[in-house]
Amino acid sequence: MRNLKVVAGNGLLHRRTFLAGALTGYALVQSASAQQLTDDPWSLAPGNTVPDYGTRSRFERNVVRTLSNPNGEPRNQHARTPHHLLNGTLTPNSLHFVISHTGDPDIDPDGHRLVIHGLVKQPLSFTLDTLSRYPMASRMSFIECGGNSAPLFSKEPIQANVQALHGLVSCAEWTGVKLSTLLDEAGVDPKAKWLIAEGADASHLSRSVPVSKALDDAMVALYQNGERLMPGNGYPMRLLLPGWEGNMNIKWLRRIQLAELPNMSYYESKIYAPILPSGKAYQFYFLQEVKSFITHPSPGLAMKGPGFYEISGLAYSGNGRISKVMVSADGGRSWAQAALQEPVLSKAFTRFRMPWRWDGGAATLQSRAWDEAGYVQPTRAEFVALRGETKRVPPVTGFPNEHYNAIVSWSVDRSGEVKHVYA
Amino acid sequence: MRNLKVVAGNGLLHRRTFLAGALTGYALVQSASAQQLTDDPWSLAPGNTVPDYGTRSRFERNVVRTLSNPNGEPRNQHARTPHHLLNGTLTPNSLHFVISHTGDPDIDPDGHRLVIHGLVKQPLSFTLDTLSRYPMASRMSFIECGGNSAPLFSKEPIQANVQALHGLVSCAEWTGVKLSTLLDEAGVDPKAKWLIAEGADASHLSRSVPVSKALDDAMVALYQNGERLMPGNGYPMRLLLPGWEGNMNIKWLRRIQLAELPNMSYYESKIYAPILPSGKAYQFYFLQEVKSFITHPSPGLAMKGPGFYEISGLAYSGNGRISKVMVSADGGRSWAQAALQEPVLSKAFTRFRMPWRWDGGAATLQSRAWDEAGYVQPTRAEFVALRGETKRVPPVTGFPNEHYNAIVSWSVDRSGEVKHVYA
Repeated sequence: MRNLKVVAGNGLLHRRTFLAGALTGYALVQSASAQQLTDDPWSLAPGNTVPDYGTRSRFERNVVRTLSNPNGEPRNQHARTPHHLLNGTLTPNSLHFVISHTGDPDIDPDGHRLVIHGLVKQPLSFTLDTLSRYPMASRMSFIECGGNSAPLFSKEPIQANVQALHGLVSCAEWTGVKLSTLLDEAGVDPKAKWLIAEGADASHLSRSVPVSKALDDAMVALYQNGERLMPGNGYPMRLLLPGWEGNMNIKWLRRIQLAELPNMSYYESKIYAPILPSGKAYQFYFLQEVKSFITHPSPGLAMKGPGFYEISGLAYSGNGRISKVMVSADGGRSWAQAALQEPVLSKAFTRFRMPWRWDGGAATLQSRAWDEAGYVQPTRAEFVALRGETKRVPPVTGFPNEHYNAIVSWSVDRSGEVKHVYA
Repeated sequence: MRNLKVVAGNGLLHRRTFLAGALTGYALVQSASAQQLTDDPWSLAPGNTVPDYGTRSRFERNVVRTLSNPNGEPRNQHARTPHHLLNGTLTPNSLHFVISHTGDPDIDPDGHRLVIHGLVKQPLSFTLDTLSRYPMASRMSFIECGGNSAPLFSKEPIQANVQALHGLVSCAEWTGVKLSTLLDEAGVDPKAKWLIAEGADASHLSRSVPVSKALDDAMVALYQNGERLMPGNGYPMRLLLPGWEGNMNIKWLRRIQLAELPNMSYYESKIYAPILPSGKAYQFYFLQEVKSFITHPSPGLAMKGPGFYEISGLAYSGNGRISKVMVSADGGRSWAQAALQEPVLSKAFTRFRMPWRWDGGAATLQSRAWDEAGYVQPTRAEFVALRGETKRVPPVTGFPNEHYNAIVSWSVDRSGEVKHVYA
């Protein structure tokens, strides 16, 4: 074996291992001869006609979001992103997570208006066409539901895959008009400290947002990964509050009211205000803190015999850029630094990668991320001491708990099966 | 009027105009009152059920690629990206441009193999599963057909929109295995100076690529914008040669043969080898040079009365990063520097933006890009002197000419109509 620099327990290799060509001779593959160049059926006849709007290969039909309410019964609907079947740092629009409380409204963009009113010098009404004349900006940004990873509040690790556990976060390039530009046009009264953003869905979901965030990096997003927003992501326009709790990024945005105080709406006073072990409500918490999870390998993606693998996953923080991700293969006894895919962007997915030589024995894989503001993912023990576990918290709201960002652990057994564990 | 810094003729404003709040009071929009918050029909009843694989709003059905051969007749097929209807820096997978010479093969990924053979120590055969155990990398990269913008070789400006003129270029995040990793595994004989890459499509399109490029930034791409490649873009794997002519990025990649010499295949000796005014063949030209075009406004997107607009477009270079884009509103007599959307990435789309106050008179819009290697887009006159115009070049190959990268001009008349002109 050549030049293999082991950097932590249980086979973690230096992140530049592969760049140094040290893989050579490990025979992940079979040797070949030119005779293997058989002409498969798809090479023997003309293929399919190119369509005007491309569709996936029929062999990819199993790559779908899982639905909590596939028949659209009168309650909320969750669609979770299959991170174990994706790679890179973007979520394709058709697979971006969605939570809808009353379904996805079928909005005619020509009839839709965005009104800015309340404590402003001049209330304004915008059409989609008008908004398109304003200067635009693009940015990569993750959006995460505050309830993502909620199953990890359970006292016992729930056996489920990364889609079921962490599928309520996605990342896209959003393009639109900075909200500060529109507020400048309306003229914000200095007394206004909050804005109340409201959607055009049947539930008129509304949330209160500090004006300071609106003037920082908030955007009225009109495009998602290059094309118009998907219906489940707010077509034809949504509020984007980079790094802040998903439901505040109001979809189908129809009004922004400037006000002195938050409006204490149903969704912020009841639904998104879980009770802490201390008895206080966890309300107006906004930020999605630094977090990471391993997507490959992960539950359901069984290992195929000992040898080389790449451990890879996603890290992100509402505070800014990811500064470091450490990976462990021995349940946290030793750690090694993962490679981060460039460009590392603020409040966006960063993919981390770590070469690993699995010896075929038991292993426990973990990742732990740091952000540029100096925050680090807590251990699960540290986290639940502050924020509780499901059985200790009365289900006052009927909702699971929110904002889980502690370390996630996968165990690998000798058969190669991957399971969710607390380690 | 407040603080409007005019930086070039015919109303170009400083690129930070909007950031400085100087827009205020220009009344792009109508004033509003809270009474305008009517409940539209889509707000009065539950919406559509969230699907497992999202689809676009029915109001976006006109955002499609244009097809040169919609019935799949036995010749090549082009599908062009509608850049005038998109925004940001990414092309959604369903709208990525496609050229297929014999349609899109319907490949079963479990049956597909990639064989590396020829001048190597050990020929190797890879399955999709095997490749997935190798270390991966992600990068944004544009791919452009060498024939993109070919209509601009015409002596007279062809009246068509940006999709028809420049729709054979797109940009995506590609994730896969660096080709250097696989070549290292096979062991390249030092005598090998070329590799011959071949697709599994019925025409077995093949191109010769210098080994130096393969060892630099070439990739066997497995994912496109997070999900598996689209059938028209090479499912389940393609060669990615960042910044090099599209057809060399072999789709449906089935083999790579290391060799001392290029193979002078049909596609490189006849199809992609146009004759220059000098009489020599323009062959093995590889690089897509620095280029830009304005997408908003552009032909078909009429201006709606005088006032503020954002001029925006795309710039890219096969040499690396875009270093500067200048914009003119008076046909090149005066120029101002556009804002570049961060992050500016090597060999990827960079969106540029420029605020403009259209006074309602005639205007001619142009953009001109520079790259970090110091190259700049030529004027059309400079370009055709070297490379010819359609009527001066015998149609030896039956193909239009290749690699047009000169300055593109749109005229705006008093009615707001936008036309393609040579200026």
